[in-house]
Amino acid sequence: MNDIIQSLFDRKSMRVYLEKKIPDEAKALILESAIQAPSAGNQLMYTILDITNKELLKKLSVSCDNQPFIADAAMALIFCADYQKWIDTFSLVEDTPRKPGVGELLLACNDALIAAQNSVVAAESLGIGSCYIGDIMEKFEYHKELLNLPQYVFPVTMLVFGYPIEKQKRRPKPNRFAKKYIVHENTYHRLDENSLRTMFEERAALSPKTSFDFEKWVQAFYRRKFDSDFSKEMTRSVGLYIEEFTKD
Amino acid sequence: MNDIIQSLFDRKSMRVYLEKKIPDEAKALILESAIQAPSAGNQLMYTILDITNKELLKKLSVSCDNQPFIADAAMALIFCADYQKWIDTFSLVEDTPRKPGVGELLLACNDALIAAQNSVVAAESLGIGSCYIGDIMEKFEYHKELLNLPQYVFPVTMLVFGYPIEKQKRRPKPNRFAKKYIVHENTYHRLDENSLRTMFEERAALSPKTSFDFEKWVQAFYRRKFDSDFSKEMTRSVGLYIEEFTKD
Repeated sequence: MNDIIQSLFDRKSMRVYLEKKIPDEAKALILESAIQAPSAGNQLMYTILDITNKELLKKLSVSCDNQPFIADAAMALIFCADYQKWIDTFSLVEDTPRKPGVGELLLACNDALIAAQNSVVAAESLGIGSCYIGDIMEKFEYHKELLNLPQYVFPVTMLVFGYPIEKQKRRPKPNRFAKKYIVHENTYHRLDENSLRTMFEERAALSPKTSFDFEKWVQAFYRRKFDSDFSKEMTRSVGLYIEEFTKD
Repeated sequence: MNDIIQSLFDRKSMRVYLEKKIPDEAKALILESAIQAPSAGNQLMYTILDITNKELLKKLSVSCDNQPFIADAAMALIFCADYQKWIDTFSLVEDTPRKPGVGELLLACNDALIAAQNSVVAAESLGIGSCYIGDIMEKFEYHKELLNLPQYVFPVTMLVFGYPIEKQKRRPKPNRFAKKYIVHENTYHRLDENSLRTMFEERAALSPKTSFDFEKWVQAFYRRKFDSDFSKEMTRSVGLYIEEFTKD
């Protein structure tokens, strides 16, 4: 295993940071690494909002499912799928350019997320921790106004960065499901009850805790992650973004 | 600049490959690097289809906008946003789990794309070139059947990999737009006509070609990329995937 792959294996989310500024040079490298990421047709269908205003960051820490550590981040970037700049460009040379649709939205999300992960990898190489905040997709009305988002701009993820405290660095990385469940050969193989149970049980067995109750764990997870207010809000909000993006 | 960031800067799409197999160990590292990527709530809401069947790959090279180089790839991975395994899991412990919506779809796309870019970075570190194929989002009816995709599985991107030929390696990486246009401070700043023109002109000036006609270039690009059959097909197809994902 080389150093680059080792770094991908080592990287885990960091949510507690030192009060330490990220030097301008490091920040520039992280941003440029994002921009150097692959992009469909070299269109760079995204815009990165660099949240430098501490009041704004505090508001985002509340609107993004009340996570105070967001407000303490040394750097926060919102990756927006952005077809606005292309439509505005096309409008300069075409009388009636066609309207973009959900294909453009998803392709722009591809671009934005690929760029986002490059910034994570670059940060990790500089000893800077990061954490994805999917909650930026929530609260359509509020975030749209707060961030001044026009019709064809969708905030698909946020990343916060900072130098992690020692205790965060020592936190074990959560175990993944085994590769055999994630990688299917040629076609999709729907997992049956036995495989699903085994997938969770095998993952649980990797951690020091000895007992794992599948029913209890899934029930609690269902309530906390899926049947939760933030999860329902995300679907409501993304629905509105799609409606806005595709309206006449 | 460290080696990891250098690698992110160097990486460009490779579309012509040597007839050279990717060793099993390298493939395993690339797949495991994907799985080690960050994932919302450690849910790994994606499935990677490893296309090992050459006939299937050939079909995909046709269905993905007729790009014969896809059929010559040493490795091809389809990254699917996958909420099916979670709904199937929840269904084992809940009588009537709520239906997932577009929030879950987009969050699963986040997971899938973040994992995909880790596989690109890992491959690059091993001298293996890669190319994203967004066209996998097209042809809903055909790909759904070909890949056996259930309701809550959406193929958000494909990646093909191979050892690039020398000429591909020497191909200059396409220049990006300057950072000042991609990174906005705090809120979105819609680019006016002058900024848009300058953004394209500055990018064109970075390459050896001396003349750049904004109108002509944008008109040609509009026709080739946006007002094209594959682009309209992508929006039609993604619309159907969303409909399928959200139907009762």
